[in-house]
Amino acid sequence: MSTTEIEAAIAAVRAEVASLHAELVKYGLVIWTGGNVSGRVPGADLFVIKPSGVSYDDLKPSNMILCDLDGNVVPGSQGSERAPSSDTAAHAYVYRNMPDVGGVVHTHSTFAVAWAARGEEIPCVITAMADEFGGPIPIGPFAIIGDDSIGRGIVETLTGHRSRAVLMQNHGPFTIGVSAKDAVKAAVMVEDVARTVHYAREAGPLIPIPQEAIDRLFDRYQNVYGQSGDERR
Amino acid sequence: MSTTEIEAAIAAVRAEVASLHAELVKYGLVIWTGGNVSGRVPGADLFVIKPSGVSYDDLKPSNMILCDLDGNVVPGSQGSERAPSSDTAAHAYVYRNMPDVGGVVHTHSTFAVAWAARGEEIPCVITAMADEFGGPIPIGPFAIIGDDSIGRGIVETLTGHRSRAVLMQNHGPFTIGVSAKDAVKAAVMVEDVARTVHYAREAGPLIPIPQEAIDRLFDRYQNVYGQSGDERR
Amino acid sequence: MSTTEIEAAIAAVRAEVASLHAELVKYGLVIWTGGNVSGRVPGADLFVIKPSGVSYDDLKPSNMILCDLDGNVVPGSQGSERAPSSDTAAHAYVYRNMPDVGGVVHTHSTFAVAWAARGEEIPCVITAMADEFGGPIPIGPFAIIGDDSIGRGIVETLTGHRSRAVLMQNHGPFTIGVSAKDAVKAAVMVEDVARTVHYAREAGPLIPIPQEAIDRLFDRYQNVYGQSGDERR
Amino acid sequence: MSTTEIEAAIAAVRAEVASLHAELVKYGLVIWTGGNVSGRVPGADLFVIKPSGVSYDDLKPSNMILCDLDGNVVPGSQGSERAPSSDTAAHAYVYRNMPDVGGVVHTHSTFAVAWAARGEEIPCVITAMADEFGGPIPIGPFAIIGDDSIGRGIVETLTGHRSRAVLMQNHGPFTIGVSAKDAVKAAVMVEDVARTVHYAREAGPLIPIPQEAIDRLFDRYQNVYGQSGDERR
Repeated sequence: MSTTEIEAAIAAVRAEVASLHAELVKYGLVIWTGGNVSGRVPGADLFVIKPSGVSYDDLKPSNMILCDLDGNVVPGSQGSERAPSSDTAAHAYVYRNMPDVGGVVHTHSTFAVAWAARGEEIPCVITAMADEFGGPIPIGPFAIIGDDSIGRGIVETLTGHRSRAVLMQNHGPFTIGVSAKDAVKAAVMVEDVARTVHYAREAGPLIPIPQEAIDRLFDRYQNVYGQSGDERR
Repeated sequence: MSTTEIEAAIAAVRAEVASLHAELVKYGLVIWTGGNVSGRVPGADLFVIKPSGVSYDDLKPSNMILCDLDGNVVPGSQGSERAPSSDTAAHAYVYRNMPDVGGVVHTHSTFAVAWAARGEEIPCVITAMADEFGGPIPIGPFAIIGDDSIGRGIVETLTGHRSRAVLMQNHGPFTIGVSAKDAVKAAVMVEDVARTVHYAREAGPLIPIPQEAIDRLFDRYQNVYGQSGDERR
Repeated sequence: MSTTEIEAAIAAVRAEVASLHAELVKYGLVIWTGGNVSGRVPGADLFVIKPSGVSYDDLKPSNMILCDLDGNVVPGSQGSERAPSSDTAAHAYVYRNMPDVGGVVHTHSTFAVAWAARGEEIPCVITAMADEFGGPIPIGPFAIIGDDSIGRGIVETLTGHRSRAVLMQNHGPFTIGVSAKDAVKAAVMVEDVARTVHYAREAGPLIPIPQEAIDRLFDRYQNVYGQSGDERR
Repeated sequence: MSTTEIEAAIAAVRAEVASLHAELVKYGLVIWTGGNVSGRVPGADLFVIKPSGVSYDDLKPSNMILCDLDGNVVPGSQGSERAPSSDTAAHAYVYRNMPDVGGVVHTHSTFAVAWAARGEEIPCVITAMADEFGGPIPIGPFAIIGDDSIGRGIVETLTGHRSRAVLMQNHGPFTIGVSAKDAVKAAVMVEDVARTVHYAREAGPLIPIPQEAIDRLFDRYQNVYGQSGDERR
């Protein structure tokens, strides 16, 4: 890619990542300055992420932070006078180790965190969950911020798993996707299924969905749903 | 009907179906692109339904999809370059088999899905539910997308039943009505009663309403409520 | 009062009652066309109430309905071509029998209805509830629409009771106040305490508030809170 | 400080306190006229607090109330014709006795009150809670309005405690901070953790976070998070 093409790609990801944060607010997944979205810059070893501790109302393309795949802010880039999200190391670890991932999202959404605080995976008992995640939502290890342990936990849990969401124990959901938008959709859906299955189960026994039906639903949704050419992008 | 009259009827249903989707958003029944409303075109073997995988913010009369009663998109009609909702076959089955139905709605609203995941009908313990549904909200069979089994499950469950809502097991609510608006009202009300009865029951035993009182409430509401001439339309 | 004065009083109550319905929407107490507010016309045997089955977005002073204390629409009055709320008889009964009541509100708000479906009064375990209601929120009898039994149940339960709210069994809350605004505040507060005490109790035993403290809180709030001269009006 | 400097400081705190009330509304922590924010005037023995019983829509810098540290309204100050919040004595007690506190917030937010009604501290089982509060959220004594007992309970509970939030038994949360904004953030976060841990625990046993991990998270968050120079201010 030429420098001009890379600049254009960065600008596009800045705009997309900045605007996608509004979806987290719209669906009630975040409060105050918590939560973050990042997006990989196609064709470059770079990604764009939210700055740390900045209000959702103040996010815009120009204050998104450009990082390399080690999670270092690119010196001199737009917005580089600010610190990136405190979860940047985890995002970077995912981009380094999962080359097909184009976007990562982290929130502390209520019901997803509730399952995480019990270290309990969400069973696949509703068809929308089979469609979207192809089975249960797994739990990742307990890991605290400060080194690669959160990123490693995400990658180890989601590699080879159908689910694009992992509930890090005592912490909360991280989601991945082929794009930042796809990861945001997974963050919205994981809270929705966490909430629905919570309420379902507290009132009595759940009816399992046969594995064969889960497989058919997942396969169909990945290949048929939406307008041709734009699914999950 | 003349061609002009049919065109006018189609345009009216396109406008109504497009705008009714906003009610699903307003009442928190849907997220992302999930959920769909359809409306029968009066005087023609046609119905109008939401396109698949399109954001609620982007719905408008011109991108609604016109289908025949087999669920096939009418070739050359406005918006026919897009795919209709993935639930179109179920809507079509209902229109073919229930001639009095003028509208169908499907959502994955939280509490209705929670009852569906347990395969448990909602008991009629509040007067608003007796008014609107005339008794319990029934459960439909487990059926997955891909053939007529969802549509058949809806029709078999609701034929001869007072309820305009069915909770398809492990899936979610489908509602019918004399018009698209009436089906949307049923979708709003079924989530409301699903939520209220959920909370009521988790805190202790419920007091049943005598059948005779349910009958009187249902009869009165169907015949008296609202402004004369416009009830349920 | 002169005719002009009565006309002015009616116009003022029409405006107040129409606008207060927005508070029911704002606080999530009503859906679709459910719920209603009424207000007594000072100095006349009249009250103003919401029309039946009209959308909240379409309410305005001119379509509020003017009724006499038997619940009959005043012939020829503005908006009299429409039917009043189906709960008008209950409101009228309250105005006839409780001369100090200036406003009545009815909703099907979620948590208040949940307690009503169990026929269980809400215990007074939070100080805000002692302030506002002076003790538990009582349950009224099971009564269905069609005669005076709902109105009689409200009046018999609330006469001599500190609470301005009653939960009619299997039905929902009715609240009264010195004005329509005061009754709306009671409707907002009763749902809030119904919700809070629901969540409190499902997680473990509640700590009762000593009766003497309840009495002091209630007395203080009725006499001291707010700006002098405008409390509860 | 010169008189002009004090006037400017008062004006700044009036503006900040007035606008911060909107955050309480935005996050659903308050209804009607309940809840209050106050902020200390830097460099003076004064604080600014909400008036009593005034609607959130009507709050503006000019009707905030200026008080001395005994909770008396400063005679002749702007807005002094109104009564200050009925919780003013508790705020004043905190400012008198905790010189590092720059802001105080009180709400009746649903889940925080639910824990308070059981007199049960919120255990620290989620990392966001370790970050923000450094451990459990403590319960304060039962105390009713009318003397210094609420203020004393807040101060005795929070002195030497990592938490900036206390749940006063049967009453609700009070939060403190280095600024009014910081106390508002604590009020938002305490409701969030109260809600999340409520749902987590009702579905099964919680996994504790090791004390050593809580300590590291709390230490890191207090010193690293956010943009340098603006954290918690």
